Amino acid sequence: MDCMLKIAVAGASGYAGGEALRLLLAHPGYGKDFEIGSLTGGSNAGARFGDLVPQLPQLADRVLEETSRDILTQNDAAILGLPHGVSAALDLPSDMYVVDCGADYRLQSADDWSRYYGSEHAGTRTYGIPEIPGNREVIRDSRYIAAPGCFPTGATLAALPGVAAGLIAPQISVVSVTGVSGAGKKPAVNLLGAETMENVRAYNVGKHRHTPEIRQNLQGVLPDPTEDVFVTFTPVLAPMKRGILTTVTAPARGSAQDIRRAYEEFCAHEPFLHLLPEGQQPETQGVRGSNMTHIQVEVVDGMAVVTSAIDNLTKGTAGAAIQCLNLMLGWEETAGLPQAGV
Amino acid sequence: MDCMLKIAVAGASGYAGGEALRLLLAHPGYGKDFEIGSLTGGSNAGARFGDLVPQLPQLADRVLEETSRDILTQNDAAILGLPHGVSAALDLPSDMYVVDCGADYRLQSADDWSRYYGSEHAGTRTYGIPEIPGNREVIRDSRYIAAPGCFPTGATLAALPGVAAGLIAPQISVVSVTGVSGAGKKPAVNLLGAETMENVRAYNVGKHRHTPEIRQNLQGVLPDPTEDVFVTFTPVLAPMKRGILTTVTAPARGSAQDIRRAYEEFCAHEPFLHLLPEGQQPETQGVRGSNMTHIQVEVVDGMAVVTSAIDNLTKGTAGAAIQCLNLMLGWEETAGLPQAGV
Amino acid sequence: MDCMLKIAVAGASGYAGGEALRLLLAHPGYGKDFEIGSLTGGSNAGARFGDLVPQLPQLADRVLEETSRDILTQNDAAILGLPHGVSAALDLPSDMYVVDCGADYRLQSADDWSRYYGSEHAGTRTYGIPEIPGNREVIRDSRYIAAPGCFPTGATLAALPGVAAGLIAPQISVVSVTGVSGAGKKPAVNLLGAETMENVRAYNVGKHRHTPEIRQNLQGVLPDPTEDVFVTFTPVLAPMKRGILTTVTAPARGSAQDIRRAYEEFCAHEPFLHLLPEGQQPETQGVRGSNMTHIQVEVVDGMAVVTSAIDNLTKGTAGAAIQCLNLMLGWEETAGLPQAGV
Amino acid sequence: MDCMLKIAVAGASGYAGGEALRLLLAHPGYGKDFEIGSLTGGSNAGARFGDLVPQLPQLADRVLEETSRDILTQNDAAILGLPHGVSAALDLPSDMYVVDCGADYRLQSADDWSRYYGSEHAGTRTYGIPEIPGNREVIRDSRYIAAPGCFPTGATLAALPGVAAGLIAPQISVVSVTGVSGAGKKPAVNLLGAETMENVRAYNVGKHRHTPEIRQNLQGVLPDPTEDVFVTFTPVLAPMKRGILTTVTAPARGSAQDIRRAYEEFCAHEPFLHLLPEGQQPETQGVRGSNMTHIQVEVVDGMAVVTSAIDNLTKGTAGAAIQCLNLMLGWEETAGLPQAGV
Repeated sequence: MDCMLKIAVAGASGYAGGEALRLLLAHPGYGKDFEIGSLTGGSNAGARFGDLVPQLPQLADRVLEETSRDILTQNDAAILGLPHGVSAALDLPSDMYVVDCGADYRLQSADDWSRYYGSEHAGTRTYGIPEIPGNREVIRDSRYIAAPGCFPTGATLAALPGVAAGLIAPQISVVSVTGVSGAGKKPAVNLLGAETMENVRAYNVGKHRHTPEIRQNLQGVLPDPTEDVFVTFTPVLAPMKRGILTTVTAPARGSAQDIRRAYEEFCAHEPFLHLLPEGQQPETQGVRGSNMTHIQVEVVDGMAVVTSAIDNLTKGTAGAAIQCLNLMLGWEETAGLPQAGV
Repeated sequence: MDCMLKIAVAGASGYAGGEALRLLLAHPGYGKDFEIGSLTGGSNAGARFGDLVPQLPQLADRVLEETSRDILTQNDAAILGLPHGVSAALDLPSDMYVVDCGADYRLQSADDWSRYYGSEHAGTRTYGIPEIPGNREVIRDSRYIAAPGCFPTGATLAALPGVAAGLIAPQISVVSVTGVSGAGKKPAVNLLGAETMENVRAYNVGKHRHTPEIRQNLQGVLPDPTEDVFVTFTPVLAPMKRGILTTVTAPARGSAQDIRRAYEEFCAHEPFLHLLPEGQQPETQGVRGSNMTHIQVEVVDGMAVVTSAIDNLTKGTAGAAIQCLNLMLGWEETAGLPQAGV
Repeated sequence: MDCMLKIAVAGASGYAGGEALRLLLAHPGYGKDFEIGSLTGGSNAGARFGDLVPQLPQLADRVLEETSRDILTQNDAAILGLPHGVSAALDLPSDMYVVDCGADYRLQSADDWSRYYGSEHAGTRTYGIPEIPGNREVIRDSRYIAAPGCFPTGATLAALPGVAAGLIAPQISVVSVTGVSGAGKKPAVNLLGAETMENVRAYNVGKHRHTPEIRQNLQGVLPDPTEDVFVTFTPVLAPMKRGILTTVTAPARGSAQDIRRAYEEFCAHEPFLHLLPEGQQPETQGVRGSNMTHIQVEVVDGMAVVTSAIDNLTKGTAGAAIQCLNLMLGWEETAGLPQAGV
Repeated sequence: MDCMLKIAVAGASGYAGGEALRLLLAHPGYGKDFEIGSLTGGSNAGARFGDLVPQLPQLADRVLEETSRDILTQNDAAILGLPHGVSAALDLPSDMYVVDCGADYRLQSADDWSRYYGSEHAGTRTYGIPEIPGNREVIRDSRYIAAPGCFPTGATLAALPGVAAGLIAPQISVVSVTGVSGAGKKPAVNLLGAETMENVRAYNVGKHRHTPEIRQNLQGVLPDPTEDVFVTFTPVLAPMKRGILTTVTAPARGSAQDIRRAYEEFCAHEPFLHLLPEGQQPETQGVRGSNMTHIQVEVVDGMAVVTSAIDNLTKGTAGAAIQCLNLMLGWEETAGLPQAGV
């Protein structure tokens, strides 16, 4: 028992933290290879966990500790679900296994960082989308992962097979419809149920911080690296708890058949990419609580329209975190990650 | 033009205030008998109205003033959508026409007030349910109305016809399922969309402040005033913006036919009570944005189950306020109050 | 009294029909200039109206008649909320005032019709978007209006000011997020609440019948008519009853300032177009039950992103129908059409 | 491998069937102790499973077989998610392990059956609530289980601890607010998203078929079996996919402390009953996708108000089915049954 790893979850009462814990509790290694270590919170430190998160009765009587370097370093690994900017300040030691669900270390370009985040760039760490060609191996050899943003996950996985094959032009319009948990658990009038139910609105049009992350991901896979990727990204808030439905529209550079074949080949060996049969569109309820990405691609009048569905809290955040943790720790990549939607 | 009344709305950016303004703008007296006077806010004073309430483009460029006696007395009438406790402190002059949507003056019993509200009782004013027998005439002669709470409106109008006829026993179990706008426009984690969508929960069980108000309303219409009314009230929060569906369960003291006849007679001359044909249950979408109360009554195995649907912001608050204002000002009681649901 | 027009509503128990009736009942001409004539239904003929539509208690005891030429010609005017293909077959006489909410007569191109609808083209009638330059006058002189589709309304009104000014290029990607009432009141497993709540999905990607209608509307206003309009249209179904949020992405051909000015000028005199102040995005709750279109335009990195919000049943269907009827009958264009959202 | 049990799921494309499959696929015995046998459907026989249920990509290419005795008897065990009346007709052999999620064999009283179901009573089998005292052992020794209805599960588990202890009087008013999946996957206008979103309504008031099942469950645990249980049951439909929040109101026969202690003792050893700390009310999101029942009990002015939350498809149907299957097959009772909500 004492050789079990201790995995801490920082920001445990937030949506990302809660989802990470749900997955860890159902992970086949739980109680065998690892135990749940420290649960930490910011303003909620000191609170009984069950008062904040009724979904996890197994941990109801745990008390949240402070999110600090001292607490976290009492663990072997940590999943960080923290507000942007906090994780860099923690400066965790390089012998811990860390998956950071915040943005601090995602962007390579300091210019992009300062344009979109308005603060100093903390640096770059291994980026946590294993499906990006070549990236899975890098993750296996890493100790600190910058887990991707939820929108970049949906948009990248939709566009990637076509763009990497040179069959979809990198002039891309992305519209992503998201559930409200993506905004986190912070009280704000415009996130109230009374403001978000029966309501759809766009927000941060042209300014969303996930825009350069999508661009960076696609730029890295272009067959002709001298080309430039253009991304117009519009996030839309819809009245649901969880899920992102992404629409990618871009000029086709190949026939419908060629493009479909590229998607088939790309998805064939990826455990969490599921290309739907022709005619069936992805829907967010198909991936609720699962780590899957459902994808469809259509080519009409010279334009490719790729759609993808993910759960923003699972594949979009905490599921991706555990997928990366599994890779880093040498466990089965799919361990504890549901493929079935609830 | 200068003989038009000025009607102020205090708490104009809240849900009750916004609904009052929507109804006033569509009122046949608008621009003829009255104009929209001051719009006031608490912490929002100074803000452009349209930034807070996109629903009312006609008033988008208005600026919210402070909620103060000085501002409000520049108007002839006022609808107050204020947090409990604020209206009593305003101490508005007795020559203004005021409909107070807060609780301050609803309860007759100072004991009830202190048990449920925990502060000193400010007094009692004319209670704003015109459908309570005898009350319509009192409202006509009043200048200050304590508009009823949203739950008491739904529960009282459901139970009233049977209780007043002595055909439903006053041992009443009330379960009311409400939309989230009933909690107002205040930021709180448990009212976030991510916490209220796809979720139903009870709250304030046995402690809700509307309990004594329901009891008071029914006590006042008992044929035998020496009887005591017992009310058990459980509010339930459901994932919708607006609406209350109330279930009243109580022992029947008459046959199903007698009870139905009592409801038919009671509702026949009430413009905002609509007894549904047998077999059709009320639904909140039937009264969305209207001032109607849809009612059904069933008697099964000696128990009466009465159900009612109202829109918590219309008949439950702002519609009732305008119904009372119409009566006080000598206008048509139904003026500006939709009977059709959206 | 006997000189009042009789206005029939065909398909009265459907969503478009019900919304038309709600608006007519609150129209200032109701009971003065017109009365509600025949209410007709297809398979629902013979049913009590209130059993099907609880929202309109004023008409609850009406009985639905058959949708036939004989019944409809007993009226002076008719609003048709019928399945596509039915209205053309009715062949209503040319002296009736008709607003046809179906698609039969919307498209000018018989080729487009046969590609998207797969049947024979019935012809073309006056198209019911008064905001298209020059069209208001044509509507005034017409007797039969082909009311626009809900998606084309949202997309056209978003793109129109920029495209007509030559400041937005006609290579347009449209993603429209719609509420579920757009699909009508027909029983289908994929429209069940259990399939549409907490779920977002795209559908009819690249194949939706509203695509050529959007193209036709924009082609007609191009400053250079030799250019071709390209439209990629992706409809997305979101878990709400009503509303459409449209995102139009297209290359900008002018500066952000020039484009904003074009929108300001276009919207200034249109009673149902409301350009939001910079920084405020349209939301469907802002136009719930109103006939407004809320619009915002952003220009980022050379791309214009225009967003619009309408209520699919009001400005998207029945409100537009009454706006056209008002014009045809010489009434105030805005009569009975709310500008305030519920 | 060939000693694995084959477990069939009849009605696999329905909500109960789909949930059973989701749980079976994540069950620790899957692929070791059992495999997924036949998937059958009624009108959907012959269809590709993934076209009907996108949530389960692992089974997407399976084809639905007919629901027949021949097909089902090729399996060792079966979970039946069939319309009422179908399972009795199948007459499955007594050596199969069967959990029947339909109502056919739930009621002991033929009179109750004919009053509420209007057909002939098929008989009675072991009832599938292991938490009813004494019942767990009977289930272990059974081969055919009548799994409980979703409402009776929520109401019985709420009332049971108090009623069995003689501390809550058996004059019980039950109001249960349910998500829309409870009505199954059948196309019907009143179950459309456009009719169920932003809408709450009661239905089958006083007539719901689950009423005698609740009564039967509580009658069986009364300390004084000569007493009669009275149940008034009102189901309410709320705009969510899944979940039931039940409110039980009944006279208290003991102090608040005694009643709370009875609940504490009852729940202490039940793996799927979680009594919340005082002051915390159950919410359906706390049990989404889990097999838990969250319970709270309040005593106010002599009345007990007990509230419970379950997921209607998990503890309310398919989870209970697997809990019973685990018991019958000698597996861990909790195997494959999540305690954490999604």
